[in-house]
Amino acid sequence: MTSYSQSVSRIIDFSYQILSDFAINKNPKNLYSPINYMLSNQGKHIRPILSLLSNYMFGGNMHDMKEIVLSIEKLHNFTLIHDDVMDNAQLRRGVPTINIKWSDNQAILSGDVLLIKSYQQLLKSKIINKQILNEFTETSIKICEGQQLDLDFQFESNIKLEDYLNMIDLKTGALIQFCLVVPCILLDVSKKDIQVMEEVGSYLGKLFQIQDDYLDLYGDESDFGKKIGGDIIEKKKTFLYVSALNKSNIEVQCELQKIYNSDNSDKLDNIISIYHDLNIKEDVQVTINNMYEKILKLLSTVQFQDDRQKFFIEFLNRVLNRNY
Amino acid sequence: MTSYSQSVSRIIDFSYQILSDFAINKNPKNLYSPINYMLSNQGKHIRPILSLLSNYMFGGNMHDMKEIVLSIEKLHNFTLIHDDVMDNAQLRRGVPTINIKWSDNQAILSGDVLLIKSYQQLLKSKIINKQILNEFTETSIKICEGQQLDLDFQFESNIKLEDYLNMIDLKTGALIQFCLVVPCILLDVSKKDIQVMEEVGSYLGKLFQIQDDYLDLYGDESDFGKKIGGDIIEKKKTFLYVSALNKSNIEVQCELQKIYNSDNSDKLDNIISIYHDLNIKEDVQVTINNMYEKILKLLSTVQFQDDRQKFFIEFLNRVLNRNY
Repeated sequence: MTSYSQSVSRIIDFSYQILSDFAINKNPKNLYSPINYMLSNQGKHIRPILSLLSNYMFGGNMHDMKEIVLSIEKLHNFTLIHDDVMDNAQLRRGVPTINIKWSDNQAILSGDVLLIKSYQQLLKSKIINKQILNEFTETSIKICEGQQLDLDFQFESNIKLEDYLNMIDLKTGALIQFCLVVPCILLDVSKKDIQVMEEVGSYLGKLFQIQDDYLDLYGDESDFGKKIGGDIIEKKKTFLYVSALNKSNIEVQCELQKIYNSDNSDKLDNIISIYHDLNIKEDVQVTINNMYEKILKLLSTVQFQDDRQKFFIEFLNRVLNRNY
Repeated sequence: MTSYSQSVSRIIDFSYQILSDFAINKNPKNLYSPINYMLSNQGKHIRPILSLLSNYMFGGNMHDMKEIVLSIEKLHNFTLIHDDVMDNAQLRRGVPTINIKWSDNQAILSGDVLLIKSYQQLLKSKIINKQILNEFTETSIKICEGQQLDLDFQFESNIKLEDYLNMIDLKTGALIQFCLVVPCILLDVSKKDIQVMEEVGSYLGKLFQIQDDYLDLYGDESDFGKKIGGDIIEKKKTFLYVSALNKSNIEVQCELQKIYNSDNSDKLDNIISIYHDLNIKEDVQVTINNMYEKILKLLSTVQFQDDRQKFFIEFLNRVLNRNY
């Protein structure tokens, strides 16, 4: 962390500090234990840190953001808990999901109360207003709508790339947009700059998801911490798969669909081979780079305090290289 | 409705009018169709009408309450949708539940978005403030906590009557309290009167639930619209069952538990016979009457505008006789 800006380190430390003191010591135990379990196995704090960095770039005080950041993290964890039920997921962050360790019913109910608690946390903030509450609510609705499109895609054989990107934008992009925009609203940033940060959030959401999909197949197993090709084995409709479908002729489409939905032992090799013929790896690299460049270009149009966007970009680079 | 006060009729009509225009015409269709289906099969509007009546008793204008009442009904329906998943319920208001007509996953996700939409609706109100938002949030948390206790009771053989009443108070009483108290907050009613309405709400919640349990066994099948003894067949831990357990000696307790959890063909007759020996029917009647009297006594301590509590009591009588 030595080469990393002191300010960013302070922000990251702050995020870990406020999120470490998260346990809900309340009855009924069975309702809150799964939440404490989920929150004790923390993720990478991407959303809290992005929000704190946006606040920092526009000259805000990070302590003002405490309740908002906690609220964002609660909302995010609620979506993960319910998604895991819907996907019948077994593992999350390397440990059994709540639906596996407890039950589907427990995951539903604990998720419900966590969603409500995200509002409770937001309402604790002394600086929020009705606009923030409305944005938070709109964001939560978008996440559900994105999850619905994702569920719907399970029953669709052919998905347009545009529809897939719209799904990611709702399911993942909306909350990242909220993270970036909420400090702007509080700090009374110009409408033009808010719009830029919204666009940055939208690209970031897509970028993170596409990079996740990319690394699942082309990442280094030891770095990534998951088995290579897991998405293909689990028949997940990823950006790579949808890109391949959208790029292939009708014969290859049919073959790809048939193999992707099979459980053959040579499935992974066959899919990799089709992707190779279609140049999917390089295509997705280009998409990732284009999105990254667009984010840099967007950021360059805003006059941030003391050129602090360089810290945001540095953090982004570290996240994208997965070693921040 | 001729003998019924014109004012109460106006309130009931208003409730039906605002709730009839409820459909969410938005994409994704699969997310919102189950919600529209649920809301088109409306219940008896108990909560909206109670809230509008409380507002009326304290001299408020019913039109001010529109968004709040819609929000309450959305929150209530969210809890029903998720409860039905957790109970694997087949029917709700005489039609298939969302989990049956669609799927568990669809009921989870549509329920989630309905909970968020209850906040969105509340935020549309021009007269709400942070206190109302906090009360709404506290209420929603209590409902989840009550549902948790209800789930926990499934795995407990012996439940204290006090714990059972606490569970009802959270699961059912909390929202009725909110319905009654929210107009008081908005109309700046005295703390003493708010406390009275809170107590009324708590008794009402218990009264409705206990009467529901009573009618399930001792009601008239054609009036009640459900099969008599359904709770016993489904092994539901009702107020009657918990009362019987709390009143019997250890031998009868064991027998009762054994039969209640069996699927024998003579189960219903045997349970009715045990309840009869323990005088459960009369006990529960006494409990219902005591609670009803306490509500009247509480209401008599408040100076309502133009003695309007008489309309509230009239509505209550009609609900309790199930023919309003």
